[in-house]
Amino acid sequence: MKTKNIETLRIDSSRLHSALAELGEIGALPGGGVCRLALTDADRAARDLVCKWMGGLGLSVQVDRIGNVIGIRKGREDAPPVLTGSHIDTVRTGGLYDGSLGVLSGLEAVARLNEAKIETARPIAVGFFTNEEGVRFAPDMMGSAVHQGALPLEEMLGKRDVHGRTVEQELERIGYRGPAPCGDFEASVCVELHIEQGPVLENEGLTIGAVTGVQGISWTEIVFEGTSNHAGTTPMSMRRDAGYAAAQVGFVVRRITEELGGTQVGTVGSIELEPNQVNVIARRARVTVDLRNTDAAGLREAEDVLHAALEDIAASENLELHHRSLARFEPVDFDEEMIARVERIARYEGHRVRRLSSGAGHDAQMFAPHCPTGMI
Amino acid sequence: MKTKNIETLRIDSSRLHSALAELGEIGALPGGGVCRLALTDADRAARDLVCKWMGGLGLSVQVDRIGNVIGIRKGREDAPPVLTGSHIDTVRTGGLYDGSLGVLSGLEAVARLNEAKIETARPIAVGFFTNEEGVRFAPDMMGSAVHQGALPLEEMLGKRDVHGRTVEQELERIGYRGPAPCGDFEASVCVELHIEQGPVLENEGLTIGAVTGVQGISWTEIVFEGTSNHAGTTPMSMRRDAGYAAAQVGFVVRRITEELGGTQVGTVGSIELEPNQVNVIARRARVTVDLRNTDAAGLREAEDVLHAALEDIAASENLELHHRSLARFEPVDFDEEMIARVERIARYEGHRVRRLSSGAGHDAQMFAPHCPTGMI
Repeated sequence: MKTKNIETLRIDSSRLHSALAELGEIGALPGGGVCRLALTDADRAARDLVCKWMGGLGLSVQVDRIGNVIGIRKGREDAPPVLTGSHIDTVRTGGLYDGSLGVLSGLEAVARLNEAKIETARPIAVGFFTNEEGVRFAPDMMGSAVHQGALPLEEMLGKRDVHGRTVEQELERIGYRGPAPCGDFEASVCVELHIEQGPVLENEGLTIGAVTGVQGISWTEIVFEGTSNHAGTTPMSMRRDAGYAAAQVGFVVRRITEELGGTQVGTVGSIELEPNQVNVIARRARVTVDLRNTDAAGLREAEDVLHAALEDIAASENLELHHRSLARFEPVDFDEEMIARVERIARYEGHRVRRLSSGAGHDAQMFAPHCPTGMI
Repeated sequence: MKTKNIETLRIDSSRLHSALAELGEIGALPGGGVCRLALTDADRAARDLVCKWMGGLGLSVQVDRIGNVIGIRKGREDAPPVLTGSHIDTVRTGGLYDGSLGVLSGLEAVARLNEAKIETARPIAVGFFTNEEGVRFAPDMMGSAVHQGALPLEEMLGKRDVHGRTVEQELERIGYRGPAPCGDFEASVCVELHIEQGPVLENEGLTIGAVTGVQGISWTEIVFEGTSNHAGTTPMSMRRDAGYAAAQVGFVVRRITEELGGTQVGTVGSIELEPNQVNVIARRARVTVDLRNTDAAGLREAEDVLHAALEDIAASENLELHHRSLARFEPVDFDEEMIARVERIARYEGHRVRRLSSGAGHDAQMFAPHCPTGMI
């Protein structure tokens, strides 16, 4: 019966696309794309628009103390709601769908339920969470993390942007410092629809991914310190070349991904040499390594191999080595029944689907420890 | 007899050190070191001081059209002079001895000849050459190159600093746009004393190097262009990672030096990634390679191996490759008799000496094609 109900409730995709386009005009960039950093005037305008839509759908709208907005449609039972949603803030050059699709498709689903006059057993909640991107205020997924008790509210309210303005000041300024408490919201289940942000589905001609979890992330900052010397007069045997060490890190990271295989990925995205001149041996190199794996043990193994290699590199070039973790998240596994349900319904609807893990962080992962959670 | 004459003419090293210290006060930096960029007010003050000393020694001082200053002490014969000298401009954080030692030790030698009332057969010329460092105006060794006809005068006069001021304007401003012609100066022999700017002599406990020549230099700028992508969601097999290519260049350059051996050195001194973020695969990498070898064929071989490797790197990561030569100088060989003479006299004087090539460029190399030339 469940799948039959879903079949009859096909969304109005042109209405959804219109809503996405209208929301995308707020903070639209000249050459395409959207810039709507968290808690800016553009974010306020987007929030106001989505709240207006929520009100129009008869949702009861709550704003919590970190500015998360949740619209609730009553159910027959006074039970924890089925939650869907995502975020409407963007990176500096964001796209039309990143985040917004998950919020507006939830509202479109509510609109169809309203039109079909369907009363659900449980309440349905559609939310958007503050500062998912983490571009203006670190860390990312701030709102959903506070919402689910993974980060402390007061500390997050005190986070500052580069101009020194706090999250709390900016929430006040744009009128989204709400009264609802954080950290005690319970959902019965959580599902988030999000664009892939990767090439796998498109490359395989698929439309739907049933997300098995979110990769664990380990960011390491590495600094090698050697001796700046003349590129001509310094024999190879007498060099302490921090630039050569940086190159070796690039090699090691690629080798780790090849040897561990599976979902292990690794990236050296940033290299900075000093003095960074063609004819001077670098005295200092700063390198970052981004390691990700869906498997917790695999990620730890990758980190261990990296750390051992760093010691070898530093010793072979007689360099000082400093490294520290910039960020670390354990992998998140989504609920098997939720994953299977996404697959089953996608196939029933005639879509080609595969399971895949998410290489990016998402609001849904904050719910995974507390209720059955999935992503589409 | 020659060596006996030399023995009796020991320099007054405390006078030489006093002169170096006095010259080093012009443009002295707070924490030590000297900043006396070419054709600045500091350079003018240093030029004025050295010219005053030249006059005091009875030298006939000539300033040529590119601002080189040569003081000549007459000989018995009206023949091309024995030339010594170097430069008195510095890099931004120069040392007390780089350049200045070669000029002031020449003046000290003249002072001793004067005091000993020795008349030489040939004239002796002590010079300092404009803009050896090439920091403010490119290229380096400008004055000596124009002096020996290796670079065109008019083109060099038109070279501009970052503020748009030309060499000619600045020569006029500081009063060193002289009347003497350039490009037709003949020396009978040329010898330049210069600090090593490298660690070899100190490391081996030696005081004197008999310089066999100047390494050939080949600078290459390499740009790889790939695709910027998410470090988490992009599988390793689908990457076009310009940052990984940059790392491979570092490896290849080190391998070239190991395989060619000899005097081949190689340095990746500059790496710049775009967008240079921890969690973004670099779409663009700019890398520089500095290759040097005293052997012309060896240097060409190193370049060939590098170029072939760049093609392989680009192909393996599916990147666009652009590379260009930023600078190239063939190796310069000094005169065997001059090299042997430096060795012989150094040993006679009880110094430990070895032959070595210079990894840095020097004014003397401009004279090597035209007269027997050596460096100490």
